[in-house]
Amino acid sequence: MRFFSDNAAPVHPRVFAALAEVDQLDTAYDGDRWSKQLDGRLSDLFETEVRALWVPTGTAANCLALAALCPPYGGVICHRDAHIQNDEGGAPEFYTHGAKLMLADGDGAKLTPASIAAVADAIANDVHRVQPHAVSITNATEYGLVYRPDEVAAIGDLCRSRGWRFHMDGARFANAVASAGCSPADVTWRAGVEALSFGFVKNGGMSAEALIFFDTGLAAATLRRRKRAGLLLSKGRYLAAQILAMTEDDLWLDNGRVANAGAALLADAAGDRLVHPVEANEVFLRVTPDEAAALRAKGFDFYDWGPGEARLVISWNQREDAIRPLADAIQAL
Amino acid sequence: MRFFSDNAAPVHPRVFAALAEVDQLDTAYDGDRWSKQLDGRLSDLFETEVRALWVPTGTAANCLALAALCPPYGGVICHRDAHIQNDEGGAPEFYTHGAKLMLADGDGAKLTPASIAAVADAIANDVHRVQPHAVSITNATEYGLVYRPDEVAAIGDLCRSRGWRFHMDGARFANAVASAGCSPADVTWRAGVEALSFGFVKNGGMSAEALIFFDTGLAAATLRRRKRAGLLLSKGRYLAAQILAMTEDDLWLDNGRVANAGAALLADAAGDRLVHPVEANEVFLRVTPDEAAALRAKGFDFYDWGPGEARLVISWNQREDAIRPLADAIQAL
Amino acid sequence: MRFFSDNAAPVHPRVFAALAEVDQLDTAYDGDRWSKQLDGRLSDLFETEVRALWVPTGTAANCLALAALCPPYGGVICHRDAHIQNDEGGAPEFYTHGAKLMLADGDGAKLTPASIAAVADAIANDVHRVQPHAVSITNATEYGLVYRPDEVAAIGDLCRSRGWRFHMDGARFANAVASAGCSPADVTWRAGVEALSFGFVKNGGMSAEALIFFDTGLAAATLRRRKRAGLLLSKGRYLAAQILAMTEDDLWLDNGRVANAGAALLADAAGDRLVHPVEANEVFLRVTPDEAAALRAKGFDFYDWGPGEARLVISWNQREDAIRPLADAIQAL
Amino acid sequence: MRFFSDNAAPVHPRVFAALAEVDQLDTAYDGDRWSKQLDGRLSDLFETEVRALWVPTGTAANCLALAALCPPYGGVICHRDAHIQNDEGGAPEFYTHGAKLMLADGDGAKLTPASIAAVADAIANDVHRVQPHAVSITNATEYGLVYRPDEVAAIGDLCRSRGWRFHMDGARFANAVASAGCSPADVTWRAGVEALSFGFVKNGGMSAEALIFFDTGLAAATLRRRKRAGLLLSKGRYLAAQILAMTEDDLWLDNGRVANAGAALLADAAGDRLVHPVEANEVFLRVTPDEAAALRAKGFDFYDWGPGEARLVISWNQREDAIRPLADAIQAL
Repeated sequence: MRFFSDNAAPVHPRVFAALAEVDQLDTAYDGDRWSKQLDGRLSDLFETEVRALWVPTGTAANCLALAALCPPYGGVICHRDAHIQNDEGGAPEFYTHGAKLMLADGDGAKLTPASIAAVADAIANDVHRVQPHAVSITNATEYGLVYRPDEVAAIGDLCRSRGWRFHMDGARFANAVASAGCSPADVTWRAGVEALSFGFVKNGGMSAEALIFFDTGLAAATLRRRKRAGLLLSKGRYLAAQILAMTEDDLWLDNGRVANAGAALLADAAGDRLVHPVEANEVFLRVTPDEAAALRAKGFDFYDWGPGEARLVISWNQREDAIRPLADAIQAL
Repeated sequence: MRFFSDNAAPVHPRVFAALAEVDQLDTAYDGDRWSKQLDGRLSDLFETEVRALWVPTGTAANCLALAALCPPYGGVICHRDAHIQNDEGGAPEFYTHGAKLMLADGDGAKLTPASIAAVADAIANDVHRVQPHAVSITNATEYGLVYRPDEVAAIGDLCRSRGWRFHMDGARFANAVASAGCSPADVTWRAGVEALSFGFVKNGGMSAEALIFFDTGLAAATLRRRKRAGLLLSKGRYLAAQILAMTEDDLWLDNGRVANAGAALLADAAGDRLVHPVEANEVFLRVTPDEAAALRAKGFDFYDWGPGEARLVISWNQREDAIRPLADAIQAL
Repeated sequence: MRFFSDNAAPVHPRVFAALAEVDQLDTAYDGDRWSKQLDGRLSDLFETEVRALWVPTGTAANCLALAALCPPYGGVICHRDAHIQNDEGGAPEFYTHGAKLMLADGDGAKLTPASIAAVADAIANDVHRVQPHAVSITNATEYGLVYRPDEVAAIGDLCRSRGWRFHMDGARFANAVASAGCSPADVTWRAGVEALSFGFVKNGGMSAEALIFFDTGLAAATLRRRKRAGLLLSKGRYLAAQILAMTEDDLWLDNGRVANAGAALLADAAGDRLVHPVEANEVFLRVTPDEAAALRAKGFDFYDWGPGEARLVISWNQREDAIRPLADAIQAL
Repeated sequence: MRFFSDNAAPVHPRVFAALAEVDQLDTAYDGDRWSKQLDGRLSDLFETEVRALWVPTGTAANCLALAALCPPYGGVICHRDAHIQNDEGGAPEFYTHGAKLMLADGDGAKLTPASIAAVADAIANDVHRVQPHAVSITNATEYGLVYRPDEVAAIGDLCRSRGWRFHMDGARFANAVASAGCSPADVTWRAGVEALSFGFVKNGGMSAEALIFFDTGLAAATLRRRKRAGLLLSKGRYLAAQILAMTEDDLWLDNGRVANAGAALLADAAGDRLVHPVEANEVFLRVTPDEAAALRAKGFDFYDWGPGEARLVISWNQREDAIRPLADAIQAL
């Protein structure tokens, strides 16, 4: 069994079925009848008018958002373990034309108003220093922590008071919402988030993420940036279809719940081996090299995550019976 | 019947079947067993060692190639009707960090060594003028003309003699090769082409094009640029699978032949209405507004292409029986 | 005698004297008492509130202006012989992060609303085409023609009606204003110009040009872009001093008049050899290679400017007695 | 007396005299006889063949160097207090098209092979992480420390072994060389440095720094980047003249020695108030707010530099008699 990452899982059957449904001639480039449903579908989901764009990767969603929120001469405050800082190969700098990521601290890759303000307050407001223009948080975080709506709102308040824009990287938004038990609206625009990267690929999709603008005025320029980045697929309906399938009858949320449940099972088994509280679908364990080897010998694959630590990620298609043997193996260590 | 563009057609069943085959857990990001086959498969097809990268759009393929071939302070000579100049929303400038497209003339969007040299020779070789560093041609061209291998080789010779790099936009490479009846090798690297955007989406694919480097040394940096552009899909195996399906048993070529045959049928019917010789799968017709309306009244849809002209594009799935009624309608005008 | 370019002339003594005056310790980076006078001085000169920034080159002034007026995904309409297109080594693309220059036609490098609209109207308003966002004209033009205030205003009206921004490259603004006999205000902001590159180096300065924002809201971001481009000199007072000296007691205008007068002298002598009307300080002559050689044999140096043509530029320090021998030599051809 | 920064001082009389000497008509844009002497003059000074370019600011020199040494998708390791990170308004990101600065630690802003390697070794060598391509050190450092030739060479060795390029920001290179008592060659190219920003403005110049390439092959592209950045002054001879004056008869070194001597005087007086050893011309003092106020009350101006610390910088023109009163005042605290 592989627990490397939820981005390696197969595609949900309902997503696959949706691809077959759109497999007929239609207009290219967002002009098809499925792409045209996205704004409405996501507006319903978020209980407010949004603009929704399909893109093929989460990096693309994140970086188009950052380009919309921060000028080339500005900075974006994020956690020093943020995906945009560490795992996107410099894409934020490419899309923003060289904006600077400004690194804040916080346990489990989670930011607070205080940790964000600490970064900003150390920057003299003169022409020599790049100034912060936006904040980006990841929910669930890179270490599987989840922001509650009030936590997001506190950051949103800080942003508003400082004149900064606010982005959420929701590569695992489904896991976050499933965990928090809140409405998607409460943890995003009602809390001040202006752009959301809404991830589906890690949660049962194939090749489509949604970039959601709650500040709908940002969409027009971003449509041009998306094209300019070579991200406008002619047969975009095959991406729209994935998002429509994932958001129909709460499939996204159900998938998130399944993965979270699997992680919870492991968390119970792991006890004080846990490096971080398990709030979504990622589990970080303290294990010795020997223990890691023992788990692998039993057929469980996962990444080492720094010395003495391992990361296990549960996917949408790994149900309890698939997880139980690993939980037992961890308990048996 | 719609003849707007081959990029609106459905996906070939064998491509769809290939998606189902890879729909199982595997390693993300090029690490899966299908992505790993691309270099070998395309090396076989081109009879030389190549590096092959999947990307989701032709614009991405083109612009990653240009970024590999031209520095930010350089220029790329292309036709003034080239797709990279007119239809990619400034993506070449984005990917190359501001290189300049230098526009050459030529009937039917086709370049010759003379038309290319004319552009270059008008540029003083001083620090005030951006200097050409590369040439990009489209094969088949934006007006459906096809370069013979010797025509490409003549441009390749010019590039070599001037120290320029050489790119081919092969969004309709299948149609071009099917038309020229040559080997893929003869019309590319044997003729001096160093990077090829090998299009599949217009020819039966869903969301995968291949960027082929004949100068394999260019691939390493491009893998980083691809990631940096948000184009590295975690579930890239669904793209690799499309390319593998399209290149198995000459599916790409067969599809190209079908589309070309349809266009030839229209060309016969059109006679001296043709604006350009029909060499691939696009047909440009002289029609009055009334004639265009008459065709549309009979259920044929297509784009106007400037005053008094119309463009009709044949897709891989439009076989003779689908084309014949249009041919008759054109003849009846 | 050299008539290559006015950018090779020495520095006016009053400019030199101003450098000596500021040669004392003061605050760095715009904080000195001379830099602080620029806004006021230029506001007086233009009879409206402006923001004025020193920069070391005209290219820097132009390209900072373009970056303020056009997003990376937009286009700037300019003449195909414009300095920004041909003589700035790709700086507009660098500063704007890849905006596209869109080339319009017009005799003597002069644009009209019609020639500008012709470029724009050929661009479909879809996501595939880069859309125009700004117009840039050069006054005096690259061929020494001068825009009258009403001509600028007609372009300004077009810009307003289309929602475009409007920039003037005034590398030879002094010559233009001296020639038109208008107020600086009439030919700029009253005619719709929002940013002006006000040149001094060709007119007696050493290393300082002014970038003037009539739309003062554009200055704040540009101050950051100027720093980010490495253009913020610590000892900026030596640049401010040059601009203050040039704008004191109309020195800029007097210098422009002298150079124009010299050109007029040559124009009289040249008669129908003139390629363009002589309205500022540049003279374009039809001369055979033998005639050019004859002039050079008499000690007059200048550039060939295409086959059968020569360019002669008069500098601020070439008064009538310096020009007369050349005028005689031209007449004697 | 002001001790804010050496970049606010006046210009050395010999530099001023040199401006007067070049104040005659000559060819623009590096074509003049003074600009042409730079390569030779600096090659002599560095005892090897170099290419030397004038630029108007140290930021421009640094960032052109970084653009030559690091691709857009790469990273540059520097100290977290480096000028390029904190004081250049994002210019490194602008010039490199988005390369990432990677921040290393070290007392007094000084790097060691170990601190550099620590940054690099934490970066997995995969496509998701930006990879280091170059190292940049500042000599003298932002806190006035000086690298000995063997310290630079140790970093140079690391760079060579890792395949990284090596840049030195020598905004205060004169102070560093004067302090180390070494040859300019020993602390640069003989120690592996490939590009040096050789500062003159802080040391008696007006508006000219030199960018020195020991790897001369880097110059050609940089000449184009310099133009493209709007940094190629037409009357560049006024910049070349400054560099020629500063490098004639060791003026640069003499000026550096004077400033260092002044700082040494203060260091003696400061005793254990020193935050960092004083090795060049900057003095960082521990002072209470009351003490700082007391110094200011006596007419000494300087910057606070974080809580309880002050920075005093000695300029080339502040000789012992100008410094002594401040030294006494510090001792009297």
